[in-house]
Amino acid sequence: MPSRTSTTISGSPRNPLVRRLLPEPAELRAEEIYGGLQFPEPPPERPCVALNMVSTADGKITVDGRAGGIGGQVDRLVMRLLRSRVDAVMVGAGTVREEKINLGLPQDLRGMVPEMPEMSERDLLGVVISGSGQVPLDNLVHNAGERLLFLISEGAPDEAVETLSTRGEARRIPEDAGYGTTLAVLRQEYGVRRLLVEGGPGLNRGLIGAGKVDELFLTFAPKLAAGEAANILTGEALEAPAGMRLISVYESGGELYLRYSLQRG
Amino acid sequence: MPSRTSTTISGSPRNPLVRRLLPEPAELRAEEIYGGLQFPEPPPERPCVALNMVSTADGKITVDGRAGGIGGQVDRLVMRLLRSRVDAVMVGAGTVREEKINLGLPQDLRGMVPEMPEMSERDLLGVVISGSGQVPLDNLVHNAGERLLFLISEGAPDEAVETLSTRGEARRIPEDAGYGTTLAVLRQEYGVRRLLVEGGPGLNRGLIGAGKVDELFLTFAPKLAAGEAANILTGEALEAPAGMRLISVYESGGELYLRYSLQRG
Repeated sequence: MPSRTSTTISGSPRNPLVRRLLPEPAELRAEEIYGGLQFPEPPPERPCVALNMVSTADGKITVDGRAGGIGGQVDRLVMRLLRSRVDAVMVGAGTVREEKINLGLPQDLRGMVPEMPEMSERDLLGVVISGSGQVPLDNLVHNAGERLLFLISEGAPDEAVETLSTRGEARRIPEDAGYGTTLAVLRQEYGVRRLLVEGGPGLNRGLIGAGKVDELFLTFAPKLAAGEAANILTGEALEAPAGMRLISVYESGGELYLRYSLQRG
Repeated sequence: MPSRTSTTISGSPRNPLVRRLLPEPAELRAEEIYGGLQFPEPPPERPCVALNMVSTADGKITVDGRAGGIGGQVDRLVMRLLRSRVDAVMVGAGTVREEKINLGLPQDLRGMVPEMPEMSERDLLGVVISGSGQVPLDNLVHNAGERLLFLISEGAPDEAVETLSTRGEARRIPEDAGYGTTLAVLRQEYGVRRLLVEGGPGLNRGLIGAGKVDELFLTFAPKLAAGEAANILTGEALEAPAGMRLISVYESGGELYLRYSLQRG
């Protein structure tokens, strides 16, 4: 599944106006969005898991096969700000196969987050999860100081492990491991207490079905696309629709930045 | 495609709190939502066309095959309020095939719209559009004083016309008529200046692709469904994503009531 990370902001953001609509109305500069963001305390066995996605008003996550064309400048800033608040960002291998993706914390964001000065001191862990180990490394944009972790199935061929090891650590996960095991590995072996997941929709659906998602950040763009592109979730219908609580709403140029909390499974 | 109209509010609404978030923040009673609503002036050749749909946060318009389960009490009130502001409400025949639907203006709404006292004096025109003329009349809930119009293809069999004529007027439309012709018929022959379209998604897509939609009212429910249900638009991708302007945002219980305007085609 494609990612929206390949589109970069040229230069520094020009500070478009953002309105907080909920809970308390306020006008702010774009980089103040999610200013005092606190993720919930994670349960002991796994990280706190937040999804971050963008969709059109008709639910599509790509236009012309790309996610980059949906969200605007503030959406891309939001994605970076969210990354600055977590220990690791994870995507499914399908997302890497579709489009170039940068799993780092862009330099231009460092120093823009005054409440978290330590962000400049550490590097974000980029995680790619893949059953087969088939991850096209050329699509992972190189970052200075990048830390990449590939979580691949025990059944993946040795040569896939060798290839991936040229860019980061390749860690095998038991074939029948559920998302609980995967998340426990991230917590216990890599110290990940806050994890941001940026799709694809199959990974999102798997994590939600397993009751492992705490929050959803959704950029809702004022566009209509139609067509065959996926929604933020694919796969079987959930047994019961997952109810969410709307925590906050920001708006800029008609684009809505929505934050929801989910019930814990 | 299913409709959410089959779910009824029992008794009078219990006045849940609604917040207007955009343009000016305010708290109001549910029946004050869209209080001063003005539709744009229609072009001379057709009605002003507004879509009204409900979707989950992952873009699905039905859960377990039904639309009624997605929106809450305020959503159903919004649907009725919007109907009170138009001359006609239209659905595709697929919507009638899926679920029972009431195309009238429920009695409990009359008198709830103080700015438009004439609503109690007139009846809403209910329009069903069908190529084949196959409309299961049992799924159209009877209303006292109902006015139904069936727009069917010239190629539809005579017996379909006879059957439909037992409930309303059956008007044939040329086989190759586009949406422009259909809308011109509604304007010129039936005096429809404001038309509310409630799906299904194929009809929505057709109208948008033809550049005939002026506004979209979207209830965005804080739920996740996944599965195979449709989005608010189905069918081929639009040549270019249709950009929209966000006009207003209301909120109640985490549900968002969004109003967008589209570029005219």
